[in-house]
Amino acid sequence: MTSFRMAEMTWPDYHEALAQDPVILVPVGATEQHGPHLPLSVDVILPTAVCEGVAARGGYLVAPPLAYGYKSMPRSGGGQHFPGTTSLDAASLVAQVKDLTREFVRHGARGIAFIVGHTENLWHVSEGCDLAYRENARLAEGLRILNVGYWQFLPAETASAIFGTTQIDWDMEHAGIMETSMMLHLRPDLVHMERLVEHAPSRVPGYELWPYDIDAVPSDGVLNTAGAATAEKGKQFLDAYVRSLAAALGDAFK
Amino acid sequence: MTSFRMAEMTWPDYHEALAQDPVILVPVGATEQHGPHLPLSVDVILPTAVCEGVAARGGYLVAPPLAYGYKSMPRSGGGQHFPGTTSLDAASLVAQVKDLTREFVRHGARGIAFIVGHTENLWHVSEGCDLAYRENARLAEGLRILNVGYWQFLPAETASAIFGTTQIDWDMEHAGIMETSMMLHLRPDLVHMERLVEHAPSRVPGYELWPYDIDAVPSDGVLNTAGAATAEKGKQFLDAYVRSLAAALGDAFK
Amino acid sequence: MTSFRMAEMTWPDYHEALAQDPVILVPVGATEQHGPHLPLSVDVILPTAVCEGVAARGGYLVAPPLAYGYKSMPRSGGGQHFPGTTSLDAASLVAQVKDLTREFVRHGARGIAFIVGHTENLWHVSEGCDLAYRENARLAEGLRILNVGYWQFLPAETASAIFGTTQIDWDMEHAGIMETSMMLHLRPDLVHMERLVEHAPSRVPGYELWPYDIDAVPSDGVLNTAGAATAEKGKQFLDAYVRSLAAALGDAFK
Amino acid sequence: MTSFRMAEMTWPDYHEALAQDPVILVPVGATEQHGPHLPLSVDVILPTAVCEGVAARGGYLVAPPLAYGYKSMPRSGGGQHFPGTTSLDAASLVAQVKDLTREFVRHGARGIAFIVGHTENLWHVSEGCDLAYRENARLAEGLRILNVGYWQFLPAETASAIFGTTQIDWDMEHAGIMETSMMLHLRPDLVHMERLVEHAPSRVPGYELWPYDIDAVPSDGVLNTAGAATAEKGKQFLDAYVRSLAAALGDAFK
Amino acid sequence: MTSFRMAEMTWPDYHEALAQDPVILVPVGATEQHGPHLPLSVDVILPTAVCEGVAARGGYLVAPPLAYGYKSMPRSGGGQHFPGTTSLDAASLVAQVKDLTREFVRHGARGIAFIVGHTENLWHVSEGCDLAYRENARLAEGLRILNVGYWQFLPAETASAIFGTTQIDWDMEHAGIMETSMMLHLRPDLVHMERLVEHAPSRVPGYELWPYDIDAVPSDGVLNTAGAATAEKGKQFLDAYVRSLAAALGDAFK
Amino acid sequence: MTSFRMAEMTWPDYHEALAQDPVILVPVGATEQHGPHLPLSVDVILPTAVCEGVAARGGYLVAPPLAYGYKSMPRSGGGQHFPGTTSLDAASLVAQVKDLTREFVRHGARGIAFIVGHTENLWHVSEGCDLAYRENARLAEGLRILNVGYWQFLPAETASAIFGTTQIDWDMEHAGIMETSMMLHLRPDLVHMERLVEHAPSRVPGYELWPYDIDAVPSDGVLNTAGAATAEKGKQFLDAYVRSLAAALGDAFK
Repeated sequence: MTSFRMAEMTWPDYHEALAQDPVILVPVGATEQHGPHLPLSVDVILPTAVCEGVAARGGYLVAPPLAYGYKSMPRSGGGQHFPGTTSLDAASLVAQVKDLTREFVRHGARGIAFIVGHTENLWHVSEGCDLAYRENARLAEGLRILNVGYWQFLPAETASAIFGTTQIDWDMEHAGIMETSMMLHLRPDLVHMERLVEHAPSRVPGYELWPYDIDAVPSDGVLNTAGAATAEKGKQFLDAYVRSLAAALGDAFK
Repeated sequence: MTSFRMAEMTWPDYHEALAQDPVILVPVGATEQHGPHLPLSVDVILPTAVCEGVAARGGYLVAPPLAYGYKSMPRSGGGQHFPGTTSLDAASLVAQVKDLTREFVRHGARGIAFIVGHTENLWHVSEGCDLAYRENARLAEGLRILNVGYWQFLPAETASAIFGTTQIDWDMEHAGIMETSMMLHLRPDLVHMERLVEHAPSRVPGYELWPYDIDAVPSDGVLNTAGAATAEKGKQFLDAYVRSLAAALGDAFK
Repeated sequence: MTSFRMAEMTWPDYHEALAQDPVILVPVGATEQHGPHLPLSVDVILPTAVCEGVAARGGYLVAPPLAYGYKSMPRSGGGQHFPGTTSLDAASLVAQVKDLTREFVRHGARGIAFIVGHTENLWHVSEGCDLAYRENARLAEGLRILNVGYWQFLPAETASAIFGTTQIDWDMEHAGIMETSMMLHLRPDLVHMERLVEHAPSRVPGYELWPYDIDAVPSDGVLNTAGAATAEKGKQFLDAYVRSLAAALGDAFK
Repeated sequence: MTSFRMAEMTWPDYHEALAQDPVILVPVGATEQHGPHLPLSVDVILPTAVCEGVAARGGYLVAPPLAYGYKSMPRSGGGQHFPGTTSLDAASLVAQVKDLTREFVRHGARGIAFIVGHTENLWHVSEGCDLAYRENARLAEGLRILNVGYWQFLPAETASAIFGTTQIDWDMEHAGIMETSMMLHLRPDLVHMERLVEHAPSRVPGYELWPYDIDAVPSDGVLNTAGAATAEKGKQFLDAYVRSLAAALGDAFK
Repeated sequence: MTSFRMAEMTWPDYHEALAQDPVILVPVGATEQHGPHLPLSVDVILPTAVCEGVAARGGYLVAPPLAYGYKSMPRSGGGQHFPGTTSLDAASLVAQVKDLTREFVRHGARGIAFIVGHTENLWHVSEGCDLAYRENARLAEGLRILNVGYWQFLPAETASAIFGTTQIDWDMEHAGIMETSMMLHLRPDLVHMERLVEHAPSRVPGYELWPYDIDAVPSDGVLNTAGAATAEKGKQFLDAYVRSLAAALGDAFK
Repeated sequence: MTSFRMAEMTWPDYHEALAQDPVILVPVGATEQHGPHLPLSVDVILPTAVCEGVAARGGYLVAPPLAYGYKSMPRSGGGQHFPGTTSLDAASLVAQVKDLTREFVRHGARGIAFIVGHTENLWHVSEGCDLAYRENARLAEGLRILNVGYWQFLPAETASAIFGTTQIDWDMEHAGIMETSMMLHLRPDLVHMERLVEHAPSRVPGYELWPYDIDAVPSDGVLNTAGAATAEKGKQFLDAYVRSLAAALGDAFK
């Protein structure tokens, strides 16, 4: 057995793999608008690719990704008013995180990492992890659960090389240079650069308001310009994320 | 735009497609042991393939599948004691069905069909549909929601041709001839026929018991023999399902 | 103290009875339409009678039945559109199963069997049992919880004798020969054979649809003909169920 | 059709009865210790008898009683530490009240009264009614929902005649004169007067404490003396309750 | 460190104080109409003052009060139809009681007392305590949780001195003499005696009805007359409550 | 009536005030460790002061603050392992936001703003607002609900003047210069500057891990140095927040 994709493993393969005490990586994505040029599944494809990159180095398994995530916010994903954005209530996401943890613990896993691909998931996955740890800690000695947004581990040198700064406003990067570049690298067949319209970056207010002030969100759902995206940059991003996340996970689960 | 896979569409593509009033098909799978010869994702791969077959005929979109489903029962999936079987509590699955329905309704969809690939999902997806209909019926005139296990639409002639009978005990077909054949057709790279061990069909009792009587479940997780599976039969099954499900959906959403 | 009906026992009687380590049988019924000829409480009366028959043989107590069950489905009970059908959401039924289990465990019981009288209850009682076992297993060594539909234990010889076959489509038996016969035996005062209208068996589609296709359900709520029902057959059914269920429970709790 | 017991009616009978716009009475009981002399089902039997008495006067239907209620408190029922007391969490009871209301409203009912037989149910049935009204008020013009403990309508003259005062501490009446008398009238076969032990009334503190101070509760579960109970007084109680509750319901639903 | 108000303590102070094994008092209030003469926060101010009086004697800490409580009922608070009454659903209050208990237990506390200032809170705080005890008892040896309405501990001599009787109908005291007097003593700046209108005591029916019979509730929200209230009586009440509650808590947590 | 504090208003005063269509400000705080020098209630005191400052300008009412908030995270509050930090699960906070919104809407309010004083509350208050808007939008034309962390509106000139930069890492400001300064201005009696220990800023990892890596959090709970705090700066902060938040709210609710 050589794969690290849980979905492709038979149960005896999986059982055998667990005996090596791997960390199980769970990509937590979203089905969400990503502008006129990217498909709805960007937030599934990217963390899955990062997880697979990490797992290819050994010591990890990649569980099937969660394809639906928490609701999109105007400031970091454009908002729930876009067709195609298909989201869960917080409680639904929390429940899944709890259920998956309980199951992996039953299987014998002691290291579980939720690798988030959609900003808005973070706090609800965190609640799920906290409740899951509360429920399972006594049952599973040595249990460790981790929650991280993969983009939070961009190495300073990559940031500088591509953005010219290490101070990146990730909220604005929705469907921007980073995501578009990685998609050009991973799934160019799903990217439509010719549909990109250049416009000024979005300036959403510092508060959240219901009903949304839709006029404050660009009508194409792109918060920042993505014109400078290239497949080469995408590879740089992916390699950098894999490297730095592998290092961070190595620290956390050592 | 020619695709019917929601995951691959941009939001304007999806928005445009919805204007044709398609039915949205949601494959509802599971991550579950399927014997020594099949991968954990059989119940995701098969209903997704059926949905895509139906959608290729036009009038449908296929949403990203749910990769995790309700708990496996000894009588129809072997039970939760197998490593790899990674399941949700009923409430978690119900919540997702409600959330997805609410979202598709917001997008403007009026026909939504949950195409189940895992027996144990059926009653909980049903509860989700019932609650979703209760919540949304008043908001969305003409709304229709459907729940079906794809295997429930095997045409009599296909059943006779392959099984020699139309009285099939689907509970026993877990990781059996039908699923193995379809996997041989769709993903032969993930099938390990050489690992199959022939043994008598399982005889689980007519009740459910906690803790499980594990001795009543074959230790390899195969409830019935799969040795007669072939890729050719798999194609027959798939074609038959696509044809008959398309007809049934056509009736239901006409 | 000679009774086995918990409702009729004082608490010291019950306390004393528990010292013999009996299995507690909980009839799980429904308040549901049963055609023009049977009362709304058929699904309470029948499993209660079966439980009492089993308990009369010793080693069991019968708890007060749950009079309301899960929603009726078109294919096995006619559907929720009938007046009189008075049902619970899944979560409400699950919660009761959990609560009752917790209480019986606190009393000292180690064997609890939910004896279901209404098809649609089965999967939700199952979820309740699973959650109850998860919660209580560690607190109560030797705990066993069982879930069964009483009709699932019709002996082959009784089936052959009455139906002429052992392949019975129980979904179609709603308010049919079996239930009508047992009611004629147990509560003839509540049966109105003269109101029966003969019509062809219902042919509901293989899927579930919201809103219901009401035209697919017979307007009188009887899915199959009940004209051949007699009190004598009712006695045969009851005796057979008691005998075979007692045997099965004996196995499960031995 | 002349019955008022929903459980005994066919659905067409029930449907016809609803056309007269009756109020549906739902007895909400408990399975709870009632001393060494009374059975566990006192709190089901008594409110059901009162409901049937009221319904016999016309204009009402009696739904199947809820046999399990909220947890017993030391001060009004002795507490949850007695074997036999088999109780629900608040959320489970609330959920049932909501579900039943939703169903009766669907049937066309516009008047629903929950007639409580167990003190501790009152506040949770109240929450259920409040949520049910919030959910259904807009859907059902003229809807009225009522919550009452039947004992709260003892006429002053009956109180004076039997207790010698109109200031009755109902919390202390658990398994006392009133309940014992009514049981002697209604189900003398289930009463064991010879097992009664006279002791001073219980003096539970004004607060609730977990874990219980079990020493503050009489070990037989009788909070007050029941020795003066007679079947004749039981008839007086029942008649008085029926009369005064019928009057109160008449006011509330006029 | 000399304070007993948790809100005013630093965490090292609190940590040190916990080493003395104090009982943590949690005032559970409400934001609710209290007639034309009292502010919406009466039910927060009064139990907090009682708690602080008790705590000033040593051995207790006072946690920040819950400012919102369960819904007001017509019979004891006038009902939810008044503007300003701002209430929680039962489940929301229950959840807070559980969360706070879990946290205090984590801090090392073994005695926790919820001191209720609003009648309608009592049964829901009780459910919260019961669930919290179920969850935490095994984790925290010696844990004790208490629930009490502070007014339930009025000494007989104070009752006689002020009311001329020891039989007080507390349900009617909403915004009456007791609450008004205590507010005149504690926060005279928030009392408007000149706005009081004398009217006969309210006579709400013995049942609860939705929708409310608003005519049965005085339109000013005062169920009984408060004209005889004085600051001096308020001091008498407060002193009496502090004294008797301190004694009761001393008993319960000894 | 001149007050804007809901807690101090009678219900007729509140009723009258609502006729002017004010926005209701709800401070959402926390009971959380704030280092050795600040009390546990900093996150209640500060947003309440900001709200009162805004309300003093007219057009707003201030509701009683929520004194308990969501769990503290290592990266922005030090984590849940500190004694004194007393937190709610996400669902409990979400429920309160929903309940309060429902109530204010019933009172007639059409503008409601949750002013958060504790970073970790933001995403859960957001979920509460989203669910509350979903529930109430149809019932309350013109309803607007807002969620904001007060610190998110620090004007650039104040930031520059005090911090020497406009790029502030608010996560690190827990118990730092800003909060300490504001407390020195508002409640100097509760600040213990002499207990401050200078140490390097905390460097928590970019991921969340259960169990916490406690060594990564300073043992005193201060993530950044607070030594430069002064009451004068505190007044600057407060004035700046009031000014800029008033402007933002004016925009949002215009």
